Amino acid sequence: MKQSTLTELPIWRKLSAQVLEMNRSENHLKHLIQHSERLTDFSIKTDKFLYDFSRQRVNGETMALLFDLAQERNLSAQFNNMISGTKVNLTENRAALHTASRNFSDQPLLMDGHDVMPEIRRIRADMKAFSEKVHNGNIVGTTGKAFEHIVVIGIGGSYLGTAFLSEALKAFSEKKMTLHYLANVDIHNFGQIVREIDPEKTLWIVISKSYTTAETAANEAQARAFMAGKGLSPKHHFVTVTAKGSPGDRPNSADMLASFHMFDFIGGRYSATSAVGGVPLSLFLGYDRFEHLLKGAESMDRHAAEAPIFQNAPLIAALISIWNNNFLGYPAQAIIPYAEPLCKLAPHVQQLNMESNGKSVSVTGEAVGVDTGGIIFGEPGTNAQHSFFQLAHQGRPFPIEFIGVVRPQFTQYPLTSKGVTNHQELWANLISQPHALAVGRDSDDPAKSFSGNRPSSTILLPDLSPESVGRLLSFYEAKTVYEAFIWGINPFDQFGVELGKKLASDIRSEMVHKNQNEAHAFENADPISRYYLNALFSRSITCY
Amino acid sequence: MKQSTLTELPIWRKLSAQVLEMNRSENHLKHLIQHSERLTDFSIKTDKFLYDFSRQRVNGETMALLFDLAQERNLSAQFNNMISGTKVNLTENRAALHTASRNFSDQPLLMDGHDVMPEIRRIRADMKAFSEKVHNGNIVGTTGKAFEHIVVIGIGGSYLGTAFLSEALKAFSEKKMTLHYLANVDIHNFGQIVREIDPEKTLWIVISKSYTTAETAANEAQARAFMAGKGLSPKHHFVTVTAKGSPGDRPNSADMLASFHMFDFIGGRYSATSAVGGVPLSLFLGYDRFEHLLKGAESMDRHAAEAPIFQNAPLIAALISIWNNNFLGYPAQAIIPYAEPLCKLAPHVQQLNMESNGKSVSVTGEAVGVDTGGIIFGEPGTNAQHSFFQLAHQGRPFPIEFIGVVRPQFTQYPLTSKGVTNHQELWANLISQPHALAVGRDSDDPAKSFSGNRPSSTILLPDLSPESVGRLLSFYEAKTVYEAFIWGINPFDQFGVELGKKLASDIRSEMVHKNQNEAHAFENADPISRYYLNALFSRSITCY
Repeated sequence: MKQSTLTELPIWRKLSAQVLEMNRSENHLKHLIQHSERLTDFSIKTDKFLYDFSRQRVNGETMALLFDLAQERNLSAQFNNMISGTKVNLTENRAALHTASRNFSDQPLLMDGHDVMPEIRRIRADMKAFSEKVHNGNIVGTTGKAFEHIVVIGIGGSYLGTAFLSEALKAFSEKKMTLHYLANVDIHNFGQIVREIDPEKTLWIVISKSYTTAETAANEAQARAFMAGKGLSPKHHFVTVTAKGSPGDRPNSADMLASFHMFDFIGGRYSATSAVGGVPLSLFLGYDRFEHLLKGAESMDRHAAEAPIFQNAPLIAALISIWNNNFLGYPAQAIIPYAEPLCKLAPHVQQLNMESNGKSVSVTGEAVGVDTGGIIFGEPGTNAQHSFFQLAHQGRPFPIEFIGVVRPQFTQYPLTSKGVTNHQELWANLISQPHALAVGRDSDDPAKSFSGNRPSSTILLPDLSPESVGRLLSFYEAKTVYEAFIWGINPFDQFGVELGKKLASDIRSEMVHKNQNEAHAFENADPISRYYLNALFSRSITCY
Repeated sequence: MKQSTLTELPIWRKLSAQVLEMNRSENHLKHLIQHSERLTDFSIKTDKFLYDFSRQRVNGETMALLFDLAQERNLSAQFNNMISGTKVNLTENRAALHTASRNFSDQPLLMDGHDVMPEIRRIRADMKAFSEKVHNGNIVGTTGKAFEHIVVIGIGGSYLGTAFLSEALKAFSEKKMTLHYLANVDIHNFGQIVREIDPEKTLWIVISKSYTTAETAANEAQARAFMAGKGLSPKHHFVTVTAKGSPGDRPNSADMLASFHMFDFIGGRYSATSAVGGVPLSLFLGYDRFEHLLKGAESMDRHAAEAPIFQNAPLIAALISIWNNNFLGYPAQAIIPYAEPLCKLAPHVQQLNMESNGKSVSVTGEAVGVDTGGIIFGEPGTNAQHSFFQLAHQGRPFPIEFIGVVRPQFTQYPLTSKGVTNHQELWANLISQPHALAVGRDSDDPAKSFSGNRPSSTILLPDLSPESVGRLLSFYEAKTVYEAFIWGINPFDQFGVELGKKLASDIRSEMVHKNQNEAHAFENADPISRYYLNALFSRSITCY
């Protein structure tokens, strides 16, 4: 399993030399994109998905080198190891089988000699049956009323993927259900939600793999106290999604309506297609739509696993990421969907990618020696154009992933302004922005000059159906793990969050002492932390 | 007005040398924060606002040099020029008088010899009168029903500031009004909103200074057609906020209920305290709360203008930004409020700062010679801890601005988990994260090592009252312009968005031709753009 240090690889040095080549003025994007075959040569196109990297700062030679890097790092083998149940999460000695959650083949999928598929199929059937019973009124609240509000209690990977998907597919929600997310331990999150729900018609879904997450436990306690205060029985209003055998796995308990299982071989940030997303989305959209989403994800999984490297969209996207990050030196990347329903994609990928690849150490424990994960941010276009695109055009450059949708979810508004529909106006901008960034414009007035040569990719989806959205979800998962496989890091652990948790536990103990004994003076805390503790307890900034 | 090139300044070279000093191991943050006076020496504290930079990678010498830089660049004089009406927006020959919108003094404020204050006071009175009439039922919709939905049509600066403020103060909304934002020209934005409103009870506020913004015009057209289709008169449902004399300035028109003025001396991204924010926020929260917000902003304006540089919170925050950006080399900065109601602060500051300072050319037209504005992103804590904090702790470092609130808006939930309330749990994390980032932790296992020395600031507010939120808004505005004044750039123009607009106009023309003549083949478009045009019109990715 020992791999060479990246920077020692001959191919890495060749790529470094290639930077000089791409920096030559004749390789400015304004020239590269003039070639009539540019788009054909630098895009992956199927009828369901376009990945266009024609406006990235690469030429044929660059791509040939990047494909050599892909082979050198055995990317296809690593990906296929992952999806076939090998314990690729070495530090935690686990498989990473999120792809199993949308596997619809009849084949067994063995992990430690045990077929995991029957249980995955059983959970799908459970979600289908449960959501149907809620929808047809067989499962109702304590007072006999049908559920109209779903509150998902969960944070991080138990929240962001589902939030992305539910927002993307909100137009298909016909079940008269409102979905709320209680993620933050901040009491404002809870306080605001209970102003918006009708408790008799509310189903709470508590999602936590370990069932020990501090935020989720605190919010569940608030929710249970609130419901009890309204005289409503938890047996009729609380559902859990958790690992088998966790403290929350109590399907027949007196304070629980149902429990659904998640697995330790599916990491939180990759779990949107497991019961983590499946339970809330089946309720919000209907189980069938959730299954269509799974099938879209499955089709992209197959592409990511089977397409040759030079035709493999997420693999090429990962190579481009590494090229932009490590060779061209861009530390950040924006995701700009020209589709308002994808407004939560960037926050989801921000977690998926930054938590997976924000590492400094290889799977074998050595320093990686180069920067790994970059900063991911983004807002929908055209909104972003009126926000931070000034900087994108004339300030510090950063690569952008544009996303377009050919056919919108809403088609009943043919009205035109300036001769175009709203959807056409949106596309006029989607088409223009990558072009403007690439070509730039000279001007005698320096304040009105645009240097251009600012790279971007564009992804097109035919529509925002559940299948297409599932495909997009899987694309970003595959891109993320391919990046990690190039760097040789483990995209499935997150030891970087442990220190903060440990210190928070110490501070919590200080608070507990103070709650019990008003005279407690926080002697154990460092001087700065002590000030903050005093500010909190004295309810004043000028506490001393 | 000609300033020396930054990098030629002796103080700039001294600061560059100071980097070596701060990189010495004894200046690791884990050592610096041990000094008992560290917090006192490296924070600005009033009873209304704390700016704590004790966990930034600075020592006394660094700060002394930064204060020299502040003096060298005449920061205080530049700020005072701005607030007193000088035309500091040189490229557009305009003043930048956003501070006037929350000026409550009795003094005249002359611009070109003309006192602008009477008109500002008149608009405040108009907003007060209008919102009261709506609230008491003197102004109702066509069918006599009271308004319950407000839809703000506006984008960029006509949207993000108001969205930040309305979200921050939602707990104080007692007027039974729901606020919607129609910013994106994407038809999904419009389609979703009209599913959520009751048209008879809906008031539309169209906000555009020039009244020529393409997105806003397209959305207004959709809204008017929709209301007409329901038989509702625009005279009872449409209000505008626009510049005097713009095409939307028609207070007595047959298709308009009222018009409110904004001024060319207040830029969009600085306009939240003008009628841009004032009209929707007065309706949503009541005019008095909006005025309290203005008074909080005014108090921070005075601090920013009058406090000596070594006690001036936004000025010091700007110096720290420049230090982190240009000297320590951090290209991005995160804003992490431990307060869910501040969830829209980062998107607002993302626009405010990146559009203001994403420039490469000085006010006098020379290349700045150093990087200017950085990338701003952020999500609320503790959510962010479960998203991208892995990278913050063990990946590529970036400075963070933490924000805490001493007294929450919701105080009726005393329930504890693990011995602490939700608010205390939140603070346990707010206290621990900056400390963990600063000190790090050594480990024999490289995957569990934390290098530490990762800088952050912490801002504390006593509460989330309108005053406190107004103070925070003004803090970020002042910080942004102080950064610009150091770099010598103009934070009030945005020529970087012009090229994209121009190219979008060309593409729109292509679309209009195609709408009129199906045979039009987009001969004028470049080959890549032509593919996208064909994909849109053929409704297929594989169009050729």
